[in-house]
Amino acid sequence: MPQMREFFVKTTQQLQVIDITPKVREIVAQDGSDDGLCCVFVPHATAAVAINENADPNIGEDLQDALAKLVPEGIWRHDRIDDNAAAHIKAAILGPSETVPVKKGKLVLGTWQSIMLMEFDGPRERRVIVQITASLEG
Amino acid sequence: MPQMREFFVKTTQQLQVIDITPKVREIVAQDGSDDGLCCVFVPHATAAVAINENADPNIGEDLQDALAKLVPEGIWRHDRIDDNAAAHIKAAILGPSETVPVKKGKLVLGTWQSIMLMEFDGPRERRVIVQITASLEG
Amino acid sequence: MPQMREFFVKTTQQLQVIDITPKVREIVAQDGSDDGLCCVFVPHATAAVAINENADPNIGEDLQDALAKLVPEGIWRHDRIDDNAAAHIKAAILGPSETVPVKKGKLVLGTWQSIMLMEFDGPRERRVIVQITASLEG
Repeated sequence: MPQMREFFVKTTQQLQVIDITPKVREIVAQDGSDDGLCCVFVPHATAAVAINENADPNIGEDLQDALAKLVPEGIWRHDRIDDNAAAHIKAAILGPSETVPVKKGKLVLGTWQSIMLMEFDGPRERRVIVQITASLEG
Repeated sequence: MPQMREFFVKTTQQLQVIDITPKVREIVAQDGSDDGLCCVFVPHATAAVAINENADPNIGEDLQDALAKLVPEGIWRHDRIDDNAAAHIKAAILGPSETVPVKKGKLVLGTWQSIMLMEFDGPRERRVIVQITASLEG
Repeated sequence: MPQMREFFVKTTQQLQVIDITPKVREIVAQDGSDDGLCCVFVPHATAAVAINENADPNIGEDLQDALAKLVPEGIWRHDRIDDNAAAHIKAAILGPSETVPVKKGKLVLGTWQSIMLMEFDGPRERRVIVQITASLEG
């Protein structure tokens, strides 16, 4: 019977990309589910989960740069309250989760796909939740 | 046995952010599922579902403003047919759903996370679908 | 017992929008699941899955145009290695999957919603994975 699992990641920079694929794969392997869906979710409003290539780590940096160009800092309503509105907006655009198919107990990721924690307001300790839902035989 | 549920939201402005977390929590509580995934989905092409902070409601407004800057109105092909192309583009970028883990019959949201209906072409009546999938013991 | 399914799509242009709804509907119909979630996932880093209107195919074109304006080509770190950084960034922003509720063996899509494969670095052969997870009675 699958159960929710979680782990923690310490980010060290304001903007950072951390490849969490190995940890998610480990949880999926331990879970024992055959076919199903794996949801990787961060319970945070200034971080997100994205999937893309990490073989060239420049891509994560490029994604951070692109979002920084699209959502400049310091010009938003929320900045008068807490100086991190851009981080919230970027997190909302990317979204807090990715859902990945599981087949024969393994994540079905493409060769060039990694699961990445996107930090937009670090350094912080971030919690990552992994929930696998399999269709068990009745 | 979980079943799809739905509710309706009346939006009153062209661009609006409506916190639907209380309604989704109520449905999850009634559902009786233990561990699983909860998908919140809008069957619309000019609205979206996002997750972010609503303790400061400025953040939702900032997100609307950011999307309005990124996707200006009136310059797209579809505007010649129906004057709401920007609403479609924003809805496609944010996406029509968010998937949230459920643990012990409760949504696993962070302290600063709310589930928000993003209206991009109101006022309208919007339908919100909540589908919970739990792994039942076989 | 649901099982992961897949199909292939040949794209013919660098930037393209392909409506894959009929194929996904067919898989859902064959699956036999009653209520559940259907995840449509591309195992690629330069393509994405989006949901929006295709009754007017201009909307997909508008979405491609909007992303091309937001993420110009040729100015990113990864372009020094492989000349397709913009495709990676667009794919990461839209995300590789969409999750759609299933009810009584049918996708619960709105009248104006289609599931679209977004090609950002074609022409290529793209693989589309469809994983349905239903809560079976124990």
